[in-house]
Amino acid sequence: MGRLRRRSDTIEFLENAKDVVELKPQANKGKWKDIFGNDNPIHVELGMGKGKFISEMSLKYPEFNFIGIDLYDELVRKASEKAYDLREEQGVSNIDNLRLVLMNIEKIEEVFEKNEIDQIYLNFSDPWPKKRHASRRLTHTNFLNKYQYVLKDKGEIHLKTDSVSLFEFSLNSFADLDLKMKNIKLDLHKEGTPENHVFTEYEEKFVEQGMRIHRCEVILLK
Amino acid sequence: MGRLRRRSDTIEFLENAKDVVELKPQANKGKWKDIFGNDNPIHVELGMGKGKFISEMSLKYPEFNFIGIDLYDELVRKASEKAYDLREEQGVSNIDNLRLVLMNIEKIEEVFEKNEIDQIYLNFSDPWPKKRHASRRLTHTNFLNKYQYVLKDKGEIHLKTDSVSLFEFSLNSFADLDLKMKNIKLDLHKEGTPENHVFTEYEEKFVEQGMRIHRCEVILLK
Ligand SMILES: C[S@@+](CC[C@H](N)C(=O)[O-])C[C@H]1O[C@@H](n2cnc3c(N)ncnc32)[C@H](O)[C@@H]1O
Ligand SMILES: C[S@@+](CC[C@H](N)C(=O)[O-])C[C@H]1O[C@@H](n2cnc3c(N)ncnc32)[C@H](O)[C@@H]1O
Repeated sequence: MGRLRRRSDTIEFLENAKDVVELKPQANKGKWKDIFGNDNPIHVELGMGKGKFISEMSLKYPEFNFIGIDLYDELVRKASEKAYDLREEQGVSNIDNLRLVLMNIEKIEEVFEKNEIDQIYLNFSDPWPKKRHASRRLTHTNFLNKYQYVLKDKGEIHLKTDSVSLFEFSLNSFADLDLKMKNIKLDLHKEGTPENHVFTEYEEKFVEQGMRIHRCEVILLK
Repeated sequence: MGRLRRRSDTIEFLENAKDVVELKPQANKGKWKDIFGNDNPIHVELGMGKGKFISEMSLKYPEFNFIGIDLYDELVRKASEKAYDLREEQGVSNIDNLRLVLMNIEKIEEVFEKNEIDQIYLNFSDPWPKKRHASRRLTHTNFLNKYQYVLKDKGEIHLKTDSVSLFEFSLNSFADLDLKMKNIKLDLHKEGTPENHVFTEYEEKFVEQGMRIHRCEVILLK
């Protein structure tokens, strides 16, 4: 994580970054539209890490709202810095369509109202390879049931991962819940990277190493 | 294919192998139960090649009926020889629950009545990697629609393949038709070969070479 920082500094940083960081996301439940000040679709990345993907998406698609979630304050801080830096680079002064949230994904139903969001990204989620940790995988049916609650009818879940075991597990979870899959790829970058593709940090690293990336999208029919 | 044989020899062989070979399968449409003389479930392998899998299955599961299909008379001959040899080896005198059929899978609806069969095996089907040949892949939706016709309610399709591209294509075809998938594996033999597993010829070769085998099963809910 680069040079060491005192935790109290991180907390202070986050408290001062109110234009992009939400430290009390529960208070926004059912009100994310008001936070963004518009009716644009809301896309959420669960486990954004250092935030490259969600920041770039928010600049590329100003007609959508983006929320990046992570469990670690240090990562939310890095993601905020990334958001500020990228906007400075591109001469964009406002940060209206992006919010970064420090929270545990397990509590997603405390932060979003039923049918409040349009799309979920699961990018390179931790594979938790041991069987006894299966329930921690972000595509466990317990998690998928929560996502179904907060997602709208025709909402989507977009999964990308290098992990063969997580991908296999995810396909079976989707199938078990009769979720409609589409655009399944077992080697996403095989015939060249798809047009308009936004890389995540992990993806960039893995593709460089020649690893295969798997993708599956789910469309909810409520 | 080993030593050369005259085609007329092959035809003569097949005509004399009436206990196991069906050369006019259309005549059996809707009557396969009578052919087998019982009500046991009927499992069909599409593209059996030299017939190792279907022969071994028929010996291992006498309470099921098996039909192996291939396009080439030389392969149906080899498969019959395999069936005779295996039965001799194991001291089984009859061959009641196995039939080998020379036909093009495209005509499957001319050979089986609606709801006549219980399970279809697609083992290492030709991948037809070129896009313009996509409609020849045995999991093209045109084929899947035919399988849905001949399969019973709760009938199953069991797919095994080494081919990443065919597997990816198949998952998308199943998803497009809203078919219910289960038991998806991206590396079937990873944690040791599953118990009671019956290898096909191609599978044996590929597993020896350390190649990953993919599996997906579909259960039809009519
Ligand atoms: C392997 S990283 C991937 C980061 C980023 N999506 C990428 O593709 O580069 C997974 C991230 O998910 C976060 N995470 C894992 N479980 C979480 C949870 N229950 N709640 C919030 N974040 C979580 C981790 O902190 C980590 O930053
Ligand atoms: C690659 S081989 C696999 C053989 C065997 N299933 C195995 O796993 O060892 C595919 C077989 O499918 C047969 N086949 C391909 N298309 C067919 C069709 N349209 N009708 C009947 N058989 C076909 C081929 O003749 C070939 O024997």
